[in-house]
Amino acid sequence: MGLFKSKGVVYRPVKDVNLGADSTEFYLQANVKAPRMTGILVKIFTWFLESPVFGALLLYILKGNNLIHKLITNAELEESPLFVPSHNFEADHKEQEVKCLDSALTPQEQVQLAIECLPTSSEKAHNETVPSFCRWTVMDYSRAYNSGDITPLMVAERFIAAVQESSKPALQMGFFINYNADDILKQANESTLRYQKGSPISVLDGVPVAIKDEIDCSPYPTTGGTKWLHKERPCIDDAYCVKRLRLCGAILVGKTNMHELGAGTSGINPHYGPARNPYDTNKIAGGSSSGSAAVVSAGLCPVALGVDGGGSVRMPASLCGVVGLKPTFGRVPHAGVLPMNWTVGMIGILAGTVEDALITYAAISGEIPSHQPSSIVTKINLPLLRLTKSICDIKLAKYGKWFDDCSDDVRLCCSLALSMLQDHYGWKTIDVTIPDIEAMRLAHYITIGSECSTWVDSFGDKHFAESGWDARVALNIYGAFSSKEYIKAQKMRNRQLQFHKKIFAEADVIVSPTTGVTAYSIQDDALKTGELDYVNGAALVRYSISGNFLGLPAVTVAVGYDKLGLPIGLQFIGRPWAEATLIHLAFAMQAICLSEYRKPKIYYDLLRKD
Amino acid sequence: MGLFKSKGVVYRPVKDVNLGADSTEFYLQANVKAPRMTGILVKIFTWFLESPVFGALLLYILKGNNLIHKLITNAELEESPLFVPSHNFEADHKEQEVKCLDSALTPQEQVQLAIECLPTSSEKAHNETVPSFCRWTVMDYSRAYNSGDITPLMVAERFIAAVQESSKPALQMGFFINYNADDILKQANESTLRYQKGSPISVLDGVPVAIKDEIDCSPYPTTGGTKWLHKERPCIDDAYCVKRLRLCGAILVGKTNMHELGAGTSGINPHYGPARNPYDTNKIAGGSSSGSAAVVSAGLCPVALGVDGGGSVRMPASLCGVVGLKPTFGRVPHAGVLPMNWTVGMIGILAGTVEDALITYAAISGEIPSHQPSSIVTKINLPLLRLTKSICDIKLAKYGKWFDDCSDDVRLCCSLALSMLQDHYGWKTIDVTIPDIEAMRLAHYITIGSECSTWVDSFGDKHFAESGWDARVALNIYGAFSSKEYIKAQKMRNRQLQFHKKIFAEADVIVSPTTGVTAYSIQDDALKTGELDYVNGAALVRYSISGNFLGLPAVTVAVGYDKLGLPIGLQFIGRPWAEATLIHLAFAMQAICLSEYRKPKIYYDLLRKD
Repeated sequence: MGLFKSKGVVYRPVKDVNLGADSTEFYLQANVKAPRMTGILVKIFTWFLESPVFGALLLYILKGNNLIHKLITNAELEESPLFVPSHNFEADHKEQEVKCLDSALTPQEQVQLAIECLPTSSEKAHNETVPSFCRWTVMDYSRAYNSGDITPLMVAERFIAAVQESSKPALQMGFFINYNADDILKQANESTLRYQKGSPISVLDGVPVAIKDEIDCSPYPTTGGTKWLHKERPCIDDAYCVKRLRLCGAILVGKTNMHELGAGTSGINPHYGPARNPYDTNKIAGGSSSGSAAVVSAGLCPVALGVDGGGSVRMPASLCGVVGLKPTFGRVPHAGVLPMNWTVGMIGILAGTVEDALITYAAISGEIPSHQPSSIVTKINLPLLRLTKSICDIKLAKYGKWFDDCSDDVRLCCSLALSMLQDHYGWKTIDVTIPDIEAMRLAHYITIGSECSTWVDSFGDKHFAESGWDARVALNIYGAFSSKEYIKAQKMRNRQLQFHKKIFAEADVIVSPTTGVTAYSIQDDALKTGELDYVNGAALVRYSISGNFLGLPAVTVAVGYDKLGLPIGLQFIGRPWAEATLIHLAFAMQAICLSEYRKPKIYYDLLRKD
Repeated sequence: MGLFKSKGVVYRPVKDVNLGADSTEFYLQANVKAPRMTGILVKIFTWFLESPVFGALLLYILKGNNLIHKLITNAELEESPLFVPSHNFEADHKEQEVKCLDSALTPQEQVQLAIECLPTSSEKAHNETVPSFCRWTVMDYSRAYNSGDITPLMVAERFIAAVQESSKPALQMGFFINYNADDILKQANESTLRYQKGSPISVLDGVPVAIKDEIDCSPYPTTGGTKWLHKERPCIDDAYCVKRLRLCGAILVGKTNMHELGAGTSGINPHYGPARNPYDTNKIAGGSSSGSAAVVSAGLCPVALGVDGGGSVRMPASLCGVVGLKPTFGRVPHAGVLPMNWTVGMIGILAGTVEDALITYAAISGEIPSHQPSSIVTKINLPLLRLTKSICDIKLAKYGKWFDDCSDDVRLCCSLALSMLQDHYGWKTIDVTIPDIEAMRLAHYITIGSECSTWVDSFGDKHFAESGWDARVALNIYGAFSSKEYIKAQKMRNRQLQFHKKIFAEADVIVSPTTGVTAYSIQDDALKTGELDYVNGAALVRYSISGNFLGLPAVTVAVGYDKLGLPIGLQFIGRPWAEATLIHLAFAMQAICLSEYRKPKIYYDLLRKD
């Protein structure tokens, strides 16, 4: 569309860019130019966007206003495109003092080895302050079941009652898109029998686990948050990761709510209701793994699975005050996950505690599926969760301008958490500069948008009218990129990977807030149309992009609350395959914050002693 | 551009498609709907194409007429996109009875090991009929230099005289874009001294080798066939492959002519003249490695390097009656090659004989550069060139409808050659069906077009007016694809790789003609504008695409001539990394055809005994 061509940025060669604290690289704040819209405004905007000529013009103006033309389309950068962020385990894995497992182990065996990494109770007693509030952990479930005080069946019944209550008009929590009481009770019965025989399969036996409705899990349809997808694509089997959890004896309790087609960050789903934040039901849960974050936060499950294509696990986890772990690209096989994109999305874990994130990571990690051409069998690395300074010497990289580009509450809370972490363990922070972060966000947007709309397009356009208004807007924008823009975005991916590799040569992890803002209010007229809020959207994903675009592992852990009592998360981004280091760091951070943790307003205590 | 949406093909799952001879899959003949244009018509077409609104409409109509919308854009196919055709050596290499070298060897050592694979003179005498015409080989040069009958300096002087003669108005062969007599004589002098001291570096010492002007080679600029590129991108060093040839002592004699930006198949370059076919100077040499094919054909070098992004080595090799070898994607490092595309182009070898292709393959193959994320160090496999039936039991796959989709002369000649090959060595041919070949051609076109225009775009559009007319047309079409079309094309890539893997489970190689037509006439009014001939273009690349799009190795060898005396090539396409098998097959085929080989009209005998 060569109407007129705005000048593009000429990026300097990577080798000439200073990544130190004294760098003169300009930090470009996201300057999103798109009005916040809800209700009738969304409908009018959609109508304009879908009109043939005006729509094309509007898209052109939107791209120009939002610097896509300047930073990507017309930019000059010398890097080759990097299409898939796959990393070679043998070449890239550089962790010390971790346990490396053979990937041919069963999920049960891997879970058992993860258990052995947990701190012993004497270590715990020695190190930890008394928590003010702590969600029940997988080990709590296991101990309760083994003691016979409580059975999986009792938990299942309480779970079903809790979900029913939460769905009533008074609350309308929007946790699940589908759950089936009969199926849950059947699984719970079987698990209860196993405990009665004294032969539970693993510590996950009888533990309720929820699955984002983007991941196949029998006997449920996989809706992807839509009203139509499951009619086109029936779910015929468990996804690979779900299979592994089932093998461990976990009770799969249903399919959690999500932002429609993962095409947004609010978690306001016009078909299944908004997933509400357990800390304040008038606030968003974040997204797109909205329900998975909310159910863990509300105590319904110690663990849930999500998918993280642009912060979609870490961001809602942070907003709901739980742990979110996004493993390295390729770590968890994607068979049975909706291919909404192919190069940025990864299965992630939402958990009430770091220990449970570790156990789940051990359960679902395994061989990379063979359809990935560069696939190699990869070892699983597990951290030894010990809270002594001597375990390892961690260097944290911090980019100050980026770290501080968030609300006052987030900045203060995350800065304080980081300095406590340094003081407590004697770890060092080095100041770095990560250039072109906003350009990376736009390149990632082009990529996930192009891939998502291509995938949706494979079902034809007959379902367009069945989609929510905000999803329609997203798909219209997603589908408007050229092959040049897509390839340029992949060049930016390569450039950013080189920057990050250089930073990881000096530091073990990059530390940042998880989101730029905490959970914001759900507007009433957004309930039916969704909302268009690209300004808040950009703030929510500000710190997420490198995890997806570069395939790096990342973890978020709750470190405090804003003035309204809404959770704030701190994020660690690691080298490829360095999940163990991240889990170890998150565990250390959690131990410091444990005494400050607060119970959400909506909370169900499934292990209560009646 | 959702003006109206034509219905797309719904592709069946790969597992449901019958690839046997009895398959009901429809063979879709290329039905290219674009007029052949030269001269003023090209200019008028360019003007229309570059006008804002009408140009967009014209592109839309062109895509629709040429089935791009039906077979790709709006098609439904379930495969994930495969962006880069990289193959894993350890997993995919399945050759028997080849010599595998450690890739840490020097080029000289690798060349020496390749020499040991050549048939001994007694074997040769026993097996081969007397050739009617044979170009001088690397070994001929080596023997002549070692005997002292002739020196590298004498060859260099003859070479320079020959190129000067060929450039005169009477011939205007258009072999080179740049060559430097002083630099050639300097290298020749040094080589001559080495022979005088009795210490040549390798059999390539003193052998003239020409380099396509898409590959960096000091002291020349790298023009890519343009008038402007070298001003934007100075050549500062030899490409990796050129370095390796230089280490072997080869004399680098200059930069061969090519189709401008590789964006065409005719080899008619408006800036540097057309590269003419040595068998008939009024015919095209093919392209885009036009000059490299022509210089080898005309006896100026036993070997030249080209780059093959869509048959660009094999096709001109076939049209000029020489051997063309395109190795597996990733086999030869691409450092120092113009990144006109990133996922389909590979350095290839043009040689007068199969033996010389083998020697050159051994010289330039080496480690994969580290910028490719999936790179692994790969062993070099060399064939033992023996002409006995017992060496190996080869199964050839033939898709009859595709094989026969060519001119009568090509069909007859290639069929005869294949049956002679079977009869002579007792090898079997199995009949197969390769579905959706035309869709693969279009998907490849979208891919190479998108990548090439993205690369050219990185220099801004200030040089557009300096480009030839046909290159401008190509760049306009190349730049008109959406990200959806690009990604859909990559889905087709994955689908085709699966088909080919299934065929390679049954057969060792796929056999086909190399081109659908032989060299056609150069029209006078095409000299300044180039020509638009998408019909002949499609016929020329008909059999080339899988080699590029799927990264498979392929080789072409001359098997005869059409009624006008123009060469015809037969192609073997192999499994990933199976270059050794291909070279072995080509050698066997060459041995049968050797007695029929004809001398081109333009031929320079550089080893003549004056």
